[in-house]
Formats: sequence, structure tokens, C-alpha cells
Amino acid sequence: MSRSCLAVILAAGESTRMKSSMSKVLHPVAGRPMIAHVMATIATSGISDVALVVGRDADKVTKAASIEGLEVTPFVQTERLGTGHAVLAAREAIARGYDEILVAYGDVPLITAGPLIAAREALAKGNDIAVIGFHTDKPTGYGRLLVENGELVAIREEKDASDEERAVTWCNSGLMAIDGRKALDLLSRIGNANVKGEYYLTDLVEIARSLGGRAVAVDAPEEELTGCNNRAELAAIERLWQDRRRHELMISGVSMIAPETVFFSHDTVIGQDALIEPNVVFGPGVVIEGGAVIHAFSHIEGAHVAAGATVGPFARLRPGANLAEGSKVGNFCEVKKAEIGKGAKVNHLTYIGDATIGADANIGAGTITCNYDGINKHETHIGERAFIGSNSALVAPVSIGEGAFVASGSVITEDVPADALALGRARQEIKPERAKVIRERNQALKAARAGKS
Amino acid sequence: MSRSCLAVILAAGESTRMKSSMSKVLHPVAGRPMIAHVMATIATSGISDVALVVGRDADKVTKAASIEGLEVTPFVQTERLGTGHAVLAAREAIARGYDEILVAYGDVPLITAGPLIAAREALAKGNDIAVIGFHTDKPTGYGRLLVENGELVAIREEKDASDEERAVTWCNSGLMAIDGRKALDLLSRIGNANVKGEYYLTDLVEIARSLGGRAVAVDAPEEELTGCNNRAELAAIERLWQDRRRHELMISGVSMIAPETVFFSHDTVIGQDALIEPNVVFGPGVVIEGGAVIHAFSHIEGAHVAAGATVGPFARLRPGANLAEGSKVGNFCEVKKAEIGKGAKVNHLTYIGDATIGADANIGAGTITCNYDGINKHETHIGERAFIGSNSALVAPVSIGEGAFVASGSVITEDVPADALALGRARQEIKPERAKVIRERNQALKAARAGKS
Amino acid sequence: MSRSCLAVILAAGESTRMKSSMSKVLHPVAGRPMIAHVMATIATSGISDVALVVGRDADKVTKAASIEGLEVTPFVQTERLGTGHAVLAAREAIARGYDEILVAYGDVPLITAGPLIAAREALAKGNDIAVIGFHTDKPTGYGRLLVENGELVAIREEKDASDEERAVTWCNSGLMAIDGRKALDLLSRIGNANVKGEYYLTDLVEIARSLGGRAVAVDAPEEELTGCNNRAELAAIERLWQDRRRHELMISGVSMIAPETVFFSHDTVIGQDALIEPNVVFGPGVVIEGGAVIHAFSHIEGAHVAAGATVGPFARLRPGANLAEGSKVGNFCEVKKAEIGKGAKVNHLTYIGDATIGADANIGAGTITCNYDGINKHETHIGERAFIGSNSALVAPVSIGEGAFVASGSVITEDVPADALALGRARQEIKPERAKVIRERNQALKAARAGKS
Repeated sequence: MSRSCLAVILAAGESTRMKSSMSKVLHPVAGRPMIAHVMATIATSGISDVALVVGRDADKVTKAASIEGLEVTPFVQTERLGTGHAVLAAREAIARGYDEILVAYGDVPLITAGPLIAAREALAKGNDIAVIGFHTDKPTGYGRLLVENGELVAIREEKDASDEERAVTWCNSGLMAIDGRKALDLLSRIGNANVKGEYYLTDLVEIARSLGGRAVAVDAPEEELTGCNNRAELAAIERLWQDRRRHELMISGVSMIAPETVFFSHDTVIGQDALIEPNVVFGPGVVIEGGAVIHAFSHIEGAHVAAGATVGPFARLRPGANLAEGSKVGNFCEVKKAEIGKGAKVNHLTYIGDATIGADANIGAGTITCNYDGINKHETHIGERAFIGSNSALVAPVSIGEGAFVASGSVITEDVPADALALGRARQEIKPERAKVIRERNQALKAARAGKS
Repeated sequence: MSRSCLAVILAAGESTRMKSSMSKVLHPVAGRPMIAHVMATIATSGISDVALVVGRDADKVTKAASIEGLEVTPFVQTERLGTGHAVLAAREAIARGYDEILVAYGDVPLITAGPLIAAREALAKGNDIAVIGFHTDKPTGYGRLLVENGELVAIREEKDASDEERAVTWCNSGLMAIDGRKALDLLSRIGNANVKGEYYLTDLVEIARSLGGRAVAVDAPEEELTGCNNRAELAAIERLWQDRRRHELMISGVSMIAPETVFFSHDTVIGQDALIEPNVVFGPGVVIEGGAVIHAFSHIEGAHVAAGATVGPFARLRPGANLAEGSKVGNFCEVKKAEIGKGAKVNHLTYIGDATIGADANIGAGTITCNYDGINKHETHIGERAFIGSNSALVAPVSIGEGAFVASGSVITEDVPADALALGRARQEIKPERAKVIRERNQALKAARAGKS
Repeated sequence: MSRSCLAVILAAGESTRMKSSMSKVLHPVAGRPMIAHVMATIATSGISDVALVVGRDADKVTKAASIEGLEVTPFVQTERLGTGHAVLAAREAIARGYDEILVAYGDVPLITAGPLIAAREALAKGNDIAVIGFHTDKPTGYGRLLVENGELVAIREEKDASDEERAVTWCNSGLMAIDGRKALDLLSRIGNANVKGEYYLTDLVEIARSLGGRAVAVDAPEEELTGCNNRAELAAIERLWQDRRRHELMISGVSMIAPETVFFSHDTVIGQDALIEPNVVFGPGVVIEGGAVIHAFSHIEGAHVAAGATVGPFARLRPGANLAEGSKVGNFCEVKKAEIGKGAKVNHLTYIGDATIGADANIGAGTITCNYDGINKHETHIGERAFIGSNSALVAPVSIGEGAFVASGSVITEDVPADALALGRARQEIKPERAKVIRERNQALKAARAGKS
């Protein structure tokens, strides 16, 4: 699109109904602040300049909004005198001279580029104002879009509407595009002669028309315009986002037995023919390749899982976990910042951190890489085909050579050469009949405690 | 409310469709017997005297119903001759003389105080009978409330209703308030001249009117009157309860990414700005302070989690777990009857039971407090800033001093002084090339087993 | 039913919208291929002969379809020329001479025997064709069933329908029964004089009538006819299947707090008065006896859980896990191919594989049976009332006698006699003030790394 456009994003709300210690627009959806979702849509709508109208948490909101590809200038709104007034907080940016001004909100994270582009295209066709509307079967409370002969003649607030007007189900979302060359003039004409003494952006329609201009409405799905005023609505938005993503992934060839129990991050990537079982949670930064299997009850963030690898059930992959083809991380295992080689197995009750594990190595149940000395982190290297006996502790920094064996229950503090056997455990002793003696003593103790002896 | 009131709670049903080894009203909703939910609502309606009509599991039902603030007298219903007959099982209590009698049911656990108070207020205004009704779009099967000029003239059973009466969507819930001074007289006039030969409480409306009295209906939300006849209905009630609680908590400032996957107990307390991730189950007795984070896949009962503490993913807190500010219990960790000090970390694959952990102590992966000798439980005390190396076993009773280190893989049976290092592990040995020999031997064994050698 | 019947199952679709590396009908619902669900229903409809029309993955599909009780003959459809053409791929089987031919589809796994039997009964009453239809409030896109005087006169495709016909909400499912003696003649008369040049099975209705025959329609619930064209629809079918099974189990006396979070396999068996908490996943081959308790976050496959046993939370039972009465497998425990004796306890962070555990034995937290030497699996036997101290490794093959004690943190490689105490751990040493020295050294190292020294 060759026409220049400034997005004015209103994000200054107090959002007291969120009952939150931070600004509403910082609350995450799919692990990403709401405001960043809006910004990503702005960017994919072909817009790069943004005037961000901020109030509470101005710095944090500006930072969260400053995603790649956007030039964001914050403007602090100090008084609350209505949406028309809020947009004018960005007067300085609007005055730079753009072909188009697009007004949107920081708490509408489900909006997609389609309606924004439609609104911009409406301006390109010579309209002064293009309001984004939505059809709903519950219009009560919304301003109605009154359209005659294809022109938007007014946005009628519920309280001012006639019975006939109230029957209209096409409603105002609040988002609109304004002819950039006329915007400052039009905005300056909004008055506040109303009950609340506020400046309403919706007045622009009638103002533009009174000056001989033309306004139109363009349509968006109601779902995309879901706003957020409290945490129940935030959860509803999260659900809509998740449902959308689940559907996209299934259509693209990802199997989910119970999609409603799988939670994605905004950036989760999953390949075709991957299987995701019930109850899986993805944090940010995950790539699952096609054909991988993620079993139930897995928690995955910052990890890469190659084709044919399997994870879970009850596995946790943390940032830097990198599972090669055909490798396996099983139940009650945690893997962090570690390369798991092709065909390697980490199957039971194990902690692997700051480590490399060679191809076809087998890590026994209950193995712990002791990577932390209380102050520093150290690395563990395990060679190809090595076998780590169960319940072993590998005290980093330490290397286990290719094909080496570590005996069960060992504490390994020194490097083990290739093909060597390492042991670090005490010899077993047997004390005949001693269990009986101990049991009797303990029972006596119990009786004594109970005040019976 | 200065008027005296007796609640008569009918809880004698056989509930055969539950296919249960216990009385229906003992089945829990949010971890609390249905009957106790009803009783809690009775108490918050300003009523303290309860006549409990019981049948099956009489003692257990009476015990479950006897919550604080209520004086509960059980009356055993030996025959099943209809609701009117059931209420009269409590004749002795009714005869004590109350201003009001409120009849309710033990299997309607979602009822709130609002409709009960409304029914009582209707009596205070001079009505003899106040029936609690609900509006529904599926009235089939329910008795219809026939109202004329604001008076309830009859409750018409579906089978006796005219087409016009069937079109009525205001239905009888079965709950009602009765003028306490007239109750015994009115109840004694109910006849059983019907197909089943039973005494129906609903006849009271017409009986009272025939004596010159007045009846009215008051309204309650349909959801609150959901009854329970089988375990599918029990699950539906649980869901309604959970949805109600989830909504309340979100509105109060608790964040939930997927509220439909979080299950609360009847007494769960959660502070503002706490975050509860997907798939969290709360048992009874939990307090989560504001600002705490409960990660996905956590199971918490009888625990207290202070502000800024984090739990999970995959953590289990059992009764007596007490997490101080900023402390952390991580994946595959179980904590029971233990104080976790400020900033202390129990992050991986650990069992902490009957213990105290000092501030800023760090418990390595795979640590086990060996608190049980097969007969008695013993305590473990870990000092501030102590560091327990991974895969250690702390055999209680034992104390680890402040700032002490326990080497990885140690078994600690004796107290460790402050700032000391304790080791309890064997020295590592290396047997060069031995892994190869063992591997070959094991492969030969495998071949032999397969019958190939 | 004494009349002979051949089921012709169409399962040759390319199913490109599944975006799958395997045939659509092999995708599982409740852990069983879709085609096998259809086959199970065929078998319970009293049919034993099946002609399976296959295309992609012909061998795998035939294998998946060949369930017990059915004689399945595969026929490969090489060209795609419509449903009429597909059925004729099985010409050879139809020509054997059956009283009835029943045409069904491999991707309709929710169909039950009821409608199939109804269609067969319609033939027995002298009809030539019995089409299975369903009522829907969203008929758009489906062929409408046009019925006059109880006879089905035509199946009208949407595009050919008049406005009046489009208002019909009884739709064609595609499934039908055909008089077996006339089937080949009728099928051979289907023409392809239509836009796509395909042979449509639906033409049979008018063909049969033109020859003086009679067609009727029988009804099936819309849900049972849900088909599958992509993975979102597959998930929808899974959900319907699971909801159906959940409801059946609850009605039969199984308690579920949140049935929507419990996932069954096609063959899961659960007894009356069992309790299944939220978030439980069942793989194939599970039997849970009445009165057992499965706590939240459990994953169970191929296991048997006796009455009064408890599992979880966070437990994983794998194939061959056999829990006797009153036994307990607790959090972060994995049990595979093992007998857990009456009243035995495996409560915390434990791996039990290839083992027997005697009655009332107690397995301490963090115990590992080391059953794998990298090549072979070995067994562990633990006697009645034995007590295994926490964090022990039992290196199989090994036996622990009745009443024996294993000290915490031991590595046990040799058999332990009954009532004996076994230890395999190093003596504890204390190095006073050494922790302080180590801490200072580590801090210096950290500072050095940070480039500060």
C-alpha cells in the first residue's frame, strides 16, 4: 500500500475493573501482552508508524508495544475527556501529515489485519471516515451504525436511539480510519456538549458529513473485536485465541485428541503429522517438528523437538532443550539447556541441565546432572552409546566417554574414559535379623510416644 | 431477621439412580458433601434451627449437615409417602412453634441465600405460603406455577395441566416457606387421594387458599435449583459450582489463563493478582496470597502459599506445606508438613516431609527427606543458606546447619554443623574397558535367551 | 437375524484434507482406528461378512478393519468415479448372493447398531432400499430425503432442490441397505450423465422405484453420522465419543468431578463407585475395579487397579501394572510390569519395573528398581512387609526378603534375607568450615567469569 498511515493506539485506560497492579494492556494473551498482539496486527496491515497514547505504566506499555517493524512514539494522556480527546493527545504525530489515520485500541488483541485493511481501502476510495463495525445478536449497549444508500450517516448511541434504530444489529467497534489530511480539522470540531462533558470520536461521522464528506462502515467478525474490562473477559479472549490457533493447527495437519486441553504460546510452531495428546502447555519459543509425539501432561518452553522424537507423559522441557530425531524424554523428567542426541533416551525421573547427551545414550531412572554448586553452573557431557545406571549423580563439570557405563547409584565426580566402567558406591553389607530388632525398637518408640509404656 | 424460622431439610431419598454405596447427599461438590452446601446457605439465610429428615446413612448425613452455627435435629423418615409426609417426619420440631417453616432439599447444593430470604420476606408480609419458582425454557416435567393478580393460585402438575397451563414457563422448585403458626394444621390437611397414594407438599397452596390464606411465588435462577439424581447430574452441578467460583475469583482480580481447567475446593482462598495457570487442582484448606504464581499441573491441598512464591509446574503441596515469600517449589516436587523459608528453593524431583527449610536454602534435585522409619515419622531441619547437593538423602531426625553444604549423592544420618561440608558417598573407581566387556557379556546373554546361541 | 447380509464399507478416500501420512480411516478415535469402530458396529449389527473397498494404505486399512468376528475381504478401488462405482468394486462379493447389502463408510466411527438394524429390518419388510437419514437444523449442503406417504421418493441434492425441498431438514447420510438379490442389477443401472461424470449411489432410490420397487428412509441421530474430513472434525468426533462414554460411565455409577477432563480408551473398564478425579488419561487395556480412586493427573495404560486401591496424583501406570486391593501408587511414580501387593505402598518419586512387591511392603521415596542393564531386563522381588529406605537403588536381578529393611540411600546388588537389614552406603564425613571455603572459592570463580577479577 503506497499511502502513508499512522496508527493511533489508545492504551491509556485505568482499567480499574481488572483489579491489577499493572496496566490492562500488559496482561498477556497466549503469553504475549495484549498491546503486542494489537501491534503485530498493525504491522501486518502495512503500517509502520504508531502513536501510542499511554497513561498508567507508560514506559512498560511503550516497551511492550515496540515490536519489530514498528516506529512507536508514546504520548501521555493526562486527562480523561473521551476518545476524541485521547486521539488528540497524539496531535503532534498526526500533524506530521499522513494519508490516513487509523484509530485502534490496546485491549482488542484478537483483531486481524483484514478489517484494518478494509478500512484503509475505504479511505483510498475517497471516503473521509471508515468505521469498523460488527454484526451481533446482542447489540444492547453498543452504538448502532446507521447506514443509508451505502453511506454511514451516524453512529447512534443506545440511549439516543429510536426503537427502529435499536433494532439495528450492526454496531460500532470504536475502531476507525480517518482521512489523514483532514483528521486534525475534523478532530478539533468534536464538541463536549453532552451529559458527561466528553469528546466522542463517534461524532466524526456526522461532522465529516456536515462538511460534505462521506463516511462508510466496514465489517469485522464480532469475535475479533472482543474487548477486555476484567479478568473474566481476559480469559474469554484467551480462549478465543487458543481456539483459533488450535483450529488452524488441526487444519494444517496437526493431530490433537482434545484440542481444548492444549495451550499454545503466541509463537508456537508445530509441523504436520505431529501428535499432541491431551493436557499439554506450551510456553514461548517452542518448535515441534512434524511427526513428533508430545504425550499427555507435558510442559514445554523454549525447546526444539525434532521429527520422530517423543516427549512425556509428564515431561518438562525448559529453554534450551534440544531433542534430536528419535530421541525420547519420558515421565517426570526435566531437561534444560541440553542437547539430547539422536535416539538417546531420558526416560524416568531425571534431571538433565547444562548437558550434552550423545546419540543412543541411555540415561537410567533417577539420574541427576548436578550442574549447580550453589553459585556457578557447570556442564556435563555424555558420549554416544554411554549407559548411565539408575539413581546416579553426575557432578559437573564432568565427561562420560563414548560407550562408558556408570554403575547404578554412583556419584561421578571425575571424567570417565570411553568404554570404561565407573563406580562410586559403597559395598553392600547385610546385618541378619537386624530389621526385626529395629522394627521392635521403633514400635516401642511409637508406643512410648503414644503414652502407652 | 427477628422472626424465628425452622428449616426442614429433606434428605431421606434412596437415590438408587446414583448407584452409590452412600446416600446421595453425602456426595461431594467442590470437596464438600452436597448437604453441607445446603446447610451453609441455610446458615447465611439467618436460620439456626434445622430439622433434618434422614433415611439412608442417617448418622453420616446428620454429621455432614451439622456445620457450625446450626442446631441440627435429625428425624428418621421410615416410610416413603411423598414430600408432605416427609415434612411431617419433623412434626415434633415444627410443633415447637416457629414464625416460619422453610422446606428445602439436601440435593440442591447450588441454592443461595437470596431466594430463601425472599421467601421468608414474603411470609413476613402476611402470606401463608411462599413457593420458590424458577423460569426455564424447558418446563416439560415440572409443576407449573399458576399466578393470578400476584397470587399463586395453584401448582399444576404437568399431567394435569391444560395446554394453556403447559405453556407457562415458571416452574415449581419444591422449596417453600410456610407460616409457622399454621404449618401443622395445613400439613395435616394434605390428602393422598391420587394415583400414587402419596402426600404432596404442593397441595398446600390450594389448601391454604381454601382456608382464606394467601400464597405467592418468589423467583430464583434456574441454575441454583439444579437437583441431582445421578452422577452425570452431580458432575453438572460441580461444573456450575466451579464456573461460579472461577468467575467470582477472576472478577476479584485473580488471573486464570484457562479457568475451565482449574478446580477449586469449597474453601479455597486466593488473593488479588495471583496467577493460576492451566490445570491446577485445589484440595481443601488452601490459601494462596496475592501475587503468588501457581504454574500448570499443580495439585495443592492444605497448603499456604505466600506472596511472591511460585509453585510448579508439576508440584504437589500437601497438608501443612507452608511456603514463605519468594520461595519456590518446582517440578516433580512433593512438600508435606514443612516450612519453606523466604527465598528457599526446592526445584526438582524432591520430597520434603516433616521439615523446616531456612531462608535462601537451596535443595538440589532429587533430594529426599527420609522422614519415615516404617513406623514413626521424624523431622529434618535445614538452616538458612544451606546447600543440599543433588540426589542426597537426609535421614531424619537430622539437622543441617546454616550455610552448610551437603555433597551430591550423600546419605546424611548425623547433624551437620553450620558452615561445614558433609559427605556420605563412596570414592569413584574407574575400570578401563570394562563397559565393553559387560556389554559383550550382556549381548551374549540376550542372544542365549533368544535361543540363538 | 436369519437373513444374510454383506456390509460394503467404503474406505478408499484420499482424504487429502487430513494432511496426513496415513489413510484417514486409520486415524484413531479413543485409541482405535476409525475403521475399527465402524467394524465393531457392523459386528454388533449381526453382520459377519464385509467387503472392504480400499485405496490408500490398503493393507494397513484391511488389517485395522479385521476385528474378531468379521470376515473381511478387501477390494481395491483404482479409479474414483463416485459412490456407486465404489460399491461395485466389491461386485465379486455382492455376486455371492446375500439377502441384504449394507453400504457404510469407514469415516463414520460414531454410528451405532440401532440405525443399521432398522435399515435391515426395513428390507425384511419388503423394501428394496432403506436409506439412513438424520434430522438436522443445518441441512445446507446435504441431500434431502423426499418422503411421500411413508415412501422415500428421491434423494434431492441441494443444488437441484426447489425452495420447498430445501426446507426439508431430513437429510441423506449416505448409508443405505439394498435388497441383496437385486443389488447388482440396480447398481449396474446407475448412470454418470451428470456434471462430474460420476456414478451416485443416491440414484438407486429412483431407479428402484422406476422398476416398481419401494424405498424408505430410517432415522439416526445426527451425531452418529458425523463424518471426518480434517483433523478438526476428527477432534470433534473424539469429543463426541468421549462425552458419550463419560455419560455412560457416570450413569453406571462412576464418579467424575470433571468428566470433560477425563479421556478414555475404547476398551476402558471402570467399576461402580470408582472415583476418577480431574485430568486422567486412559490408554488401552485398563480395568479399574469398583471403589478404586484415581487421583488427578494420572496416566494409565494396560493396568489393572483393584478395589480400594488408590492411584496418583501424578502417577503413571504402564502395561502390566497390577495393583492389588488397598495398594497405593502415589505422586511422580511410574509402575510397569509389576505386581503391587495388597496394601503395599509406592508413594513418592519411584520407578518400579519388572518387579513383584509383597503385601504391606513400603517403598520409600526415590526408590529405583534398576531393571535394565542396557541390553537385558531383570526382575526385582520384594517380600511382604519389607521396608525400602528412601533413595535406594535395587539392582536387578535381586530379591529382598520378607520383613527386610534396606537402609536409605543404599545400592542393593545382592539378595537380602528375610528380616535382615541391608546397607550399601558410605559412612558420613564432616569437614568443619569447609562449606565456607567452597562458597568463597565458587564466588571468586563467578567473579572471575564475569571478568571482574
